[in-house]
Amino acid sequence: MEKPIILVTNDDGITSPGIATLVSIASKYGEVIVCAPDSPQSGQGHAITLEHPIKLRKSTLFPDIEAYTCSGTPVDCVKLAKHVILKERKISLCLSGINHGSNASINIIYSGTMSAAMEASIEGIDSIGFSFLDFSYDTDYSYSLPYVEKLVKSALDQAFPDSQLINVNIPKGEIKGMKVCRQCDGTWIEEFKEGTDPKGEKYYWLSGKFHSEDYGTDHDIAALKEGYISIVPSHHDLTHYPSIDQFKYLELI
Amino acid sequence: MEKPIILVTNDDGITSPGIATLVSIASKYGEVIVCAPDSPQSGQGHAITLEHPIKLRKSTLFPDIEAYTCSGTPVDCVKLAKHVILKERKISLCLSGINHGSNASINIIYSGTMSAAMEASIEGIDSIGFSFLDFSYDTDYSYSLPYVEKLVKSALDQAFPDSQLINVNIPKGEIKGMKVCRQCDGTWIEEFKEGTDPKGEKYYWLSGKFHSEDYGTDHDIAALKEGYISIVPSHHDLTHYPSIDQFKYLELI
Repeated sequence: MEKPIILVTNDDGITSPGIATLVSIASKYGEVIVCAPDSPQSGQGHAITLEHPIKLRKSTLFPDIEAYTCSGTPVDCVKLAKHVILKERKISLCLSGINHGSNASINIIYSGTMSAAMEASIEGIDSIGFSFLDFSYDTDYSYSLPYVEKLVKSALDQAFPDSQLINVNIPKGEIKGMKVCRQCDGTWIEEFKEGTDPKGEKYYWLSGKFHSEDYGTDHDIAALKEGYISIVPSHHDLTHYPSIDQFKYLELI
Repeated sequence: MEKPIILVTNDDGITSPGIATLVSIASKYGEVIVCAPDSPQSGQGHAITLEHPIKLRKSTLFPDIEAYTCSGTPVDCVKLAKHVILKERKISLCLSGINHGSNASINIIYSGTMSAAMEASIEGIDSIGFSFLDFSYDTDYSYSLPYVEKLVKSALDQAFPDSQLINVNIPKGEIKGMKVCRQCDGTWIEEFKEGTDPKGEKYYWLSGKFHSEDYGTDHDIAALKEGYISIVPSHHDLTHYPSIDQFKYLELI
C-alpha cells in the first residue's frame, strides 16, 4: 500500500526545532512533504499574499525529506503545497507546528500555526495544529511526544470525527493526559510599548496580557492549568447560528 | 447626551472611497474616530504585527474628523484605536469597510476588513464589516447607502442580538432587501500565476476561483445572487461543538 502523504508546516519558520519534531514523528507513518515559511511568521493569522509574488525554494534541511521554504505566510505555504507542489496527489493529513507558544483560547485567531492548519481543513484535509506553552527554543517537550504521535496515528487511522481541524496545546511540566474541550472565552489586554525611532518619530510595539473571565472548567485554558493536553475540535464556519433567528424578529430586515 | 464614539477602519487603506462613505454616514450618528492602514492590506486576515514596531500618524483627510493612519495591519489599527487613541473612552460601535470586493462565504477568514471588525467584537464592541461585490473604485453603490445607514442606526439603538459581529455584503445592481443568513460553505481553487523575476528566479502569484458545492438557499452567496444584501451574524468561537462528544468516545483520550 502507498504511504499516506503528510504535509508538515508551521509559522515559526523551517529552522525552528518544533517543525523538526513533527517531521520526525510524521516520517514514521507517511511520506512527508515540508512547506514552511523561510522566516518567522508568528501572529500572521490567516493572512495571504495578494499584492506581490512569492518564492518557493527547495530545502535540504531534512535528510531524505522533500522540503520547501516559502517567502509567504503560513497559509500561502499550504496553498502552494496543495496546488503547486502536490497538484495531483491526495494529502492525507496536515500537521502544523509544534508552535513555540500557546495557541489556546483566542490565540487561535491570531496564530499562523492554526491558520495554516485551518487552511488545510478548508481544502478538506484532516489537520492538526500543535503548540507548546513555552516560547523558548531550548525547552524540553520530549515527554509530550508519545501523545503527539498517538494523535498523528489516530488521525491517519481515520479515528477522528467530522471536525477536520484540531487545536492541540501542550502544557509545560508533567502531563496528566489529554482533554477534549471548547475554546476558552478570553482576550488580550494590550500594553503597547512606546518608544522613538532613530529619526525621533514615536513608535508602538504590541505587547499585552491574556485575560479571561470564563470560569468554566470545560475549556482549553482550564485543561492546560490542570496539566492536561487540550484538544479543541475547531472549524471555519464563523456563523453565530443562535443570532440568525433573533435577527429575524428585528424590524430592520 | 454625549454622542456615541464610532470607530471606522478598513483594509483597503485610508484613501479608499469605501471608508469615506462609512465616515460620512457614521458622522450623522456619533463622534467618529478613524484609524486605518496607510496602505492597502487586503487578505491580511487576522494578522498582527509582532516582529517590529508600528507607526501611528494623524491624518487630515477627513475635515473635522479625528483620523489616524497606521503602518500595521487592520487588526493593529483596532488595537491601537482601543488601547492608545481612545484609552479611557467607550467605543459604542466599530464599522469596517466598505470593502471593495466580496467578503461572503469563506472570504471572511482571509479578509482584513472582517478581521478588524472581529477584533473589535473580541474587545466587546458591537461591530459591522461592510463589503461591496465589485473591486472597482469607480463603481456606484450609492443605492445601498440607505441600508448601510439603517444597519448603523440599528446597531447604535442596540437593536442587535447577542452576536456582536455582523458580516454585511452588498450585491451589485438593484437591491431587493436584506437577508439574515449563514456563511456559505465554499473554498478557493487556486491557480497560481507563475513567472520569473528580473534575476530569472521563478515566482508564484496567488489567484483563484471561488468554488462551492453548498446548494442551500439560506446562505450568504444565495442571498447575494438573488439581489439581497447578506447579513451573517458571526463570532470568534471556533469550537466545533458537535465533535466534542464524538471525540469522547474515542479511545485515544
